[in-house]
Amino acid sequence: MNPDDEERAARLTLSFLAEPGEPALGQLLRWCGAGEVVAAVMSGDEPRMALPPAAAGLPGLARAFKRWRARLGRIPPAAALAAWERDGIRLLCPGDPEWPTQLAVLADAQPVALWLRGSADLRYACLRSVSVVGARAATGYGEHVATEIAAALAERGWAVISGGAYGIDSAAHCGALGAEGVTVAVLASGLGYGYPKGHLELFSAIAGQGVLVSEWPPDRAPTRAGFLVRNRVIAALSCGTVVVEAALRSGALSTARHARDLCRPLMAVPGPVTSGQSEGCHEIIREWGAVLVTGARDVIENVSPAGELEARRIGPVYPRDNLDPVTAAVLDAIPSRDGSGPASIAVAAGVDLNTVMQCLGELAAAGFAERCAQGWRLRDG
Amino acid sequence: MNPDDEERAARLTLSFLAEPGEPALGQLLRWCGAGEVVAAVMSGDEPRMALPPAAAGLPGLARAFKRWRARLGRIPPAAALAAWERDGIRLLCPGDPEWPTQLAVLADAQPVALWLRGSADLRYACLRSVSVVGARAATGYGEHVATEIAAALAERGWAVISGGAYGIDSAAHCGALGAEGVTVAVLASGLGYGYPKGHLELFSAIAGQGVLVSEWPPDRAPTRAGFLVRNRVIAALSCGTVVVEAALRSGALSTARHARDLCRPLMAVPGPVTSGQSEGCHEIIREWGAVLVTGARDVIENVSPAGELEARRIGPVYPRDNLDPVTAAVLDAIPSRDGSGPASIAVAAGVDLNTVMQCLGELAAAGFAERCAQGWRLRDG
Repeated sequence: MNPDDEERAARLTLSFLAEPGEPALGQLLRWCGAGEVVAAVMSGDEPRMALPPAAAGLPGLARAFKRWRARLGRIPPAAALAAWERDGIRLLCPGDPEWPTQLAVLADAQPVALWLRGSADLRYACLRSVSVVGARAATGYGEHVATEIAAALAERGWAVISGGAYGIDSAAHCGALGAEGVTVAVLASGLGYGYPKGHLELFSAIAGQGVLVSEWPPDRAPTRAGFLVRNRVIAALSCGTVVVEAALRSGALSTARHARDLCRPLMAVPGPVTSGQSEGCHEIIREWGAVLVTGARDVIENVSPAGELEARRIGPVYPRDNLDPVTAAVLDAIPSRDGSGPASIAVAAGVDLNTVMQCLGELAAAGFAERCAQGWRLRDG
Repeated sequence: MNPDDEERAARLTLSFLAEPGEPALGQLLRWCGAGEVVAAVMSGDEPRMALPPAAAGLPGLARAFKRWRARLGRIPPAAALAAWERDGIRLLCPGDPEWPTQLAVLADAQPVALWLRGSADLRYACLRSVSVVGARAATGYGEHVATEIAAALAERGWAVISGGAYGIDSAAHCGALGAEGVTVAVLASGLGYGYPKGHLELFSAIAGQGVLVSEWPPDRAPTRAGFLVRNRVIAALSCGTVVVEAALRSGALSTARHARDLCRPLMAVPGPVTSGQSEGCHEIIREWGAVLVTGARDVIENVSPAGELEARRIGPVYPRDNLDPVTAAVLDAIPSRDGSGPASIAVAAGVDLNTVMQCLGELAAAGFAERCAQGWRLRDG
């Protein structure tokens, strides 16, 4: 069902009043519509009177309504809403065709609504998507790997999801954009606020080819706690999360924790053990069971439904791999320069003379050995 | 029981006749003494006649005796043996007090004897030891990590075991030697042969502080197959094996396979995914369940009996970690420069005014916030 206009307007209002992820609001919305919640906030000192009995009995509501009432002044005038709309910012509500239904996994912490800006269809993009996250203070190695993985995912039709920070987030978006793929930036501040300032150009590019997403209303500044709250959305939107670089205290590990807790595939890219920016990745591989991935191939194998397995990596195959052990032992016993007779080759190889004669013939035919004045020697190359 | 002189002489002879790891010899030695096997080799065309019935019935013996008889000319004159003895090369046989009894895990592939050179007691060193192995064509990163791990193991009283190759093997020995530790080099050629030539000085240093070990008699040149056969001994001697760097076709993975098959702890050091020399390490972490280790601390945790656990790595702890979520939200809402009144801080934090006043008092007392003309602001630092 599409949300009706009243429901949509009420969710817009609630996005200005409640903090994203507040369980009190999520619980309320199980029992009543957003319009009833807004009416209750507006109703004055006894908001519970305006609610259906099942909702009115929830614990913690009195404090929640107090907080929300204190923020009524934050609801912007219609002109501000119209200006944001002109800037291409749109509101997405549960029930809209573009709403990513996989967010239902967040239960009471599900967003009340999402603010979007960009050309991509969020729901469609997320159906085949991977979150690529990591440290702000990334190294050149981490940025290189994030770019490569994101580009390779994009080339194979997977959307990339990340935050809006410098470092790995930005490298992942650039990789996907460079490969003409779809990329989704989930921000922890309002889409009109423009944080960080240095990414305004990147955000324009993402809006052109992908989509920017925020739970916060367009004018809201970021807060420290907001980044952690936002991370649950990054984890829930995608089919799996890859941590490219993360120190032990990196915020990227909070996204990883959400992915793990939501039972979504969790992956990490290893790096030099001498780099503090890889410590978090190594920690979650060892302690949380994150899968070690070295590239997009591994990532896709981990997020794909069973059956889309990739070919195994086997390293180079050499002609001598096909020799049986006895022939290989004879080959090992043939000198490289001066040549030896079959009898001494037989002793060195620990093989009887008849067998050596037969092996030497095969090795000559296969181009490994040749006759010379002193007997047999290896052929060059 | 100590091996008597006849048994010792017979094992010396067999080390010149049989290839290390030949299962035919291992099976024979279950049923009869080494002296009986040598007598059978010497006995001419019907060696089985000289054996006890249970041994004579083993399959594959006719070919084995043929191979061994063909090598009788390799047994050196007494003068050569005396010269090796003067060079400090000694023969170690099962039953000797210094024999490392953990080699019994190799069953029929157990060495018939070991040639040793050096001052350390092999059995004692191996009781608390780790094999540190890896690529010959190591990178600077791999050599650095191998040196660091080996040095830290040595400092904590663990012996290091490795091969004698360039790259990781050599870095591991140097690390242990530099930390005045015991290091064990298991070579795939004779201890008098001197391979590789560039390591003669390293081998002297190892003999001075640790011990050189070989299954091959002192005059034997290395063969390609010999390295793979030798690797089972490296895996069996130690309490666990760490692969520091290995390409997908590296010989170090054969040591890793032996460690896995012998149910000894198998560990690998991750590295940049852009380095081919770390591909083998990543592969065995993912596919074989090797434990990802980032340093000696992790290694010791994995090879120690349960209970010797290391402290967990937790990253830096910041003062704000100790704040409860409400106080942290208030702190987040305090501006850094101009200051705000408690009422607007309360709205921004989504907390009621009484709580904000209480939190501001606590934050001021803890040094996070201070009063100013416009209300409250963050304190520097």
